[in-house]
Amino acid sequence: MASQDQYLSFSSSGFGKWLTGTLGLPQPIPLVRYRPGKPELRGPVVVGAAPGSKIEDFLASALRAMGAVTLYHPDSADWRLAAGRHEVMTGRFVPEDSGRTGALLFDATAIADTEGLKALYAFFHDTIRSLATNGRIVVIGTAPEDADSIEAAAIQRGLEGFTRSLGKEVRRAVAVQLVWLKPGGEASLDSTLRFFLSGRSAYVSGQTVRVGVPVTGVVDRPDPARSQAGRTVLITGASRGIGLSIAETFARDGAQVVLLDIPPAASELAKHAERLGGAALALDITSPDAQDAIAADAAGRGGYDVVVHNAGITRDKTIAKMSASQWDSVLDVNFAAPLHITEKLLVAKAIRPNGRVVFVSSLSGIAGNLGQSNYALSKAALIGAVGKLAPLAATEGVTVNAVAPGFIETQMTAAIPFAIREAGRRMNSMSQGGLPVDVAETIAWFAHPGSGGINGAVVRVCGQSLLGA
Amino acid sequence: MASQDQYLSFSSSGFGKWLTGTLGLPQPIPLVRYRPGKPELRGPVVVGAAPGSKIEDFLASALRAMGAVTLYHPDSADWRLAAGRHEVMTGRFVPEDSGRTGALLFDATAIADTEGLKALYAFFHDTIRSLATNGRIVVIGTAPEDADSIEAAAIQRGLEGFTRSLGKEVRRAVAVQLVWLKPGGEASLDSTLRFFLSGRSAYVSGQTVRVGVPVTGVVDRPDPARSQAGRTVLITGASRGIGLSIAETFARDGAQVVLLDIPPAASELAKHAERLGGAALALDITSPDAQDAIAADAAGRGGYDVVVHNAGITRDKTIAKMSASQWDSVLDVNFAAPLHITEKLLVAKAIRPNGRVVFVSSLSGIAGNLGQSNYALSKAALIGAVGKLAPLAATEGVTVNAVAPGFIETQMTAAIPFAIREAGRRMNSMSQGGLPVDVAETIAWFAHPGSGGINGAVVRVCGQSLLGA
Repeated sequence: MASQDQYLSFSSSGFGKWLTGTLGLPQPIPLVRYRPGKPELRGPVVVGAAPGSKIEDFLASALRAMGAVTLYHPDSADWRLAAGRHEVMTGRFVPEDSGRTGALLFDATAIADTEGLKALYAFFHDTIRSLATNGRIVVIGTAPEDADSIEAAAIQRGLEGFTRSLGKEVRRAVAVQLVWLKPGGEASLDSTLRFFLSGRSAYVSGQTVRVGVPVTGVVDRPDPARSQAGRTVLITGASRGIGLSIAETFARDGAQVVLLDIPPAASELAKHAERLGGAALALDITSPDAQDAIAADAAGRGGYDVVVHNAGITRDKTIAKMSASQWDSVLDVNFAAPLHITEKLLVAKAIRPNGRVVFVSSLSGIAGNLGQSNYALSKAALIGAVGKLAPLAATEGVTVNAVAPGFIETQMTAAIPFAIREAGRRMNSMSQGGLPVDVAETIAWFAHPGSGGINGAVVRVCGQSLLGA
Repeated sequence: MASQDQYLSFSSSGFGKWLTGTLGLPQPIPLVRYRPGKPELRGPVVVGAAPGSKIEDFLASALRAMGAVTLYHPDSADWRLAAGRHEVMTGRFVPEDSGRTGALLFDATAIADTEGLKALYAFFHDTIRSLATNGRIVVIGTAPEDADSIEAAAIQRGLEGFTRSLGKEVRRAVAVQLVWLKPGGEASLDSTLRFFLSGRSAYVSGQTVRVGVPVTGVVDRPDPARSQAGRTVLITGASRGIGLSIAETFARDGAQVVLLDIPPAASELAKHAERLGGAALALDITSPDAQDAIAADAAGRGGYDVVVHNAGITRDKTIAKMSASQWDSVLDVNFAAPLHITEKLLVAKAIRPNGRVVFVSSLSGIAGNLGQSNYALSKAALIGAVGKLAPLAATEGVTVNAVAPGFIETQMTAAIPFAIREAGRRMNSMSQGGLPVDVAETIAWFAHPGSGGINGAVVRVCGQSLLGA
């Protein structure tokens, strides 16, 4: 947290302002993150839909569960009926009179041609100025591969360009996402809306995610504050930084956590495990007996519900200067070990139904990075592993997804030279670095019992970094 | 060209050097582009392969056609046999003695585990320092979806992170690409290697492309300097800028060009068409009779071989300030018209076998852009259209692909405010903007008669811009 504060004060310095102006970035606004017991929404949710939508009832039900107050765009007066059926408070959105709103939710699933896009334009043209800082924007579309015509598919794909542009222009700590609904995913939108409409997704923006039929069917809504109650979660690299934050977040949400890290970190690991009411597993994931040891631990607990592969190392060098051992160790720790452990656990049926595997990839794995040919390869390979494992794991009732963190404030990033660090922090729609908890909340969303419809996804936690490929 | 020169002189100014240093970008090196009659390669091609490769003969044959001299990495001495069979000059690569090399070509198709990756490391570790400025790097992998195991698929996907990192660290105007081979694509690598190993791809880097079974079977190699001889090519928006450069490039390569633009540009259009020995078609692609008029023109010429949808407009505003007509016109011109014209031509069978459709998308369509919610939507929708049209058009022997230009020096970009323009130009691995001909050469590669194995691709022409999603 200290480095975050340091950054916010830096941003108003002369150099920070100059860089900001040059790159067209505004001053950062403190992100309002989720806190148990605090309201999840920042104000009313403005709702709109393109004509022909068939998911109003699902949306109304999900918003009701969040305790949302809604306002409907004048073109979407049908919302009153769905809101009425689900006892959601609603009223008409009036630009000058409605005051600050907390979120904009547009249902674009029925858009099939440019005519249909007019509703999208009208909704955001009319409502976007009402949105409070730290507000949320969610567009729900139809997955392009499921659209009925070439034009519809193309436009649904096009929404990605639209939401990404919106994220870059709206700023003010507003996060913008696109959810692509697949057939049968309607009843499982809850966990995703709760994530994207709340402060849990404070540092996630410009992302697209598909929601389809859940791998183990639709489940009952858990208590939102204890969504991981009764679940056992293994986290690797858990003694500090992002891994520790993941463990803390799952423990907060009621999970039994198993913290894994290398033997030299054993005493710290034990301390954190005790504090979180969990267990410690001190072993090197690249050791020959690691797979058996982890499978045995899983068996002893009746299987894991969630496995989070967070352990990772960097050995940065240009390829000409990199040693063979720097190359090998990064690939072994970051890629081979988590893949083989996952395969072992799946074969041993040591991940329970409605279970989750989450890999921590990296923006480097998407865009590549100077001096990280080994690291970027390992993190891109994890994305490849997600693509291949997801359909296989689904047959066991398990999903496999990845997060790709951008600039997250940790001991690792604190070591980056000043100017590059500042540039990295600033070059995103939030104009600041993220915190470990932002990565943890995203993983908790994948791991939510109601997120079984999200499988094979790669979601960046990067404040909509300008960087990419 | 004038603005390009202006830029290169700017880059050595105090401000330019400062920005360069801050963002970690070096001074730009003038790009050496393809010129008919000049050597296509800048020096010997260093060849290497992971053990188990089965495509040496195809590579040797393609390199022989380019007149390449090769050097083999000591670990890949088998290359001598393939080189001998195809009469390719070859010798052993010796780090200190081999002098400057022109390209590094590594065959990674057989890599299936981290053990196999050691050969990739050794090859680039040993050879990368030998590469001349404006050199080329090509890694050939197996398309992840066709790999034999989860681990192999993951690693093949991981190569994307590797090549992108290499592009960012090697600089010196070196372009780096990843070609993913699909089964049956081996015999059609020629046009792609010729593009990626020559100055035709000067401003293309960090890209991945799949090469598979060609839509109309393997074709004879055309004369490289006249690869479009006997082909008729329609180019929209052809009166100036990128469109005019596309027309000039196709005319240079021997095509009969049909230049299309709006009626107000008719006289300029006619002038350019005459100069290029082509025809002019002055019409508005969004007019009600445009589709029929274009289909009639095609019919009158016995069909088109290539259709390049380059016409596009911008109407930049934030969504709150954007008018409905600004929204509509951008979507109509950039997306709906090219899609409907393509559908019309395909249905009318007015694109001949081994034909091509190429859409000009944009980096904005991938990453989104401030104030371009309409434009980014339209350009992202074109990417969606490629995905849906490609498999359908293949049944007619036609491929459908897209280019996504980054910062290209045109009248349009010359109007961007100074500081933002400089930042846009510098934030890529070439540290400079591209030229219209860079986009044109990329389209000419898609349109090459030997490129029938490339279908559904989106290739950025952006010097490996840092920007993305």
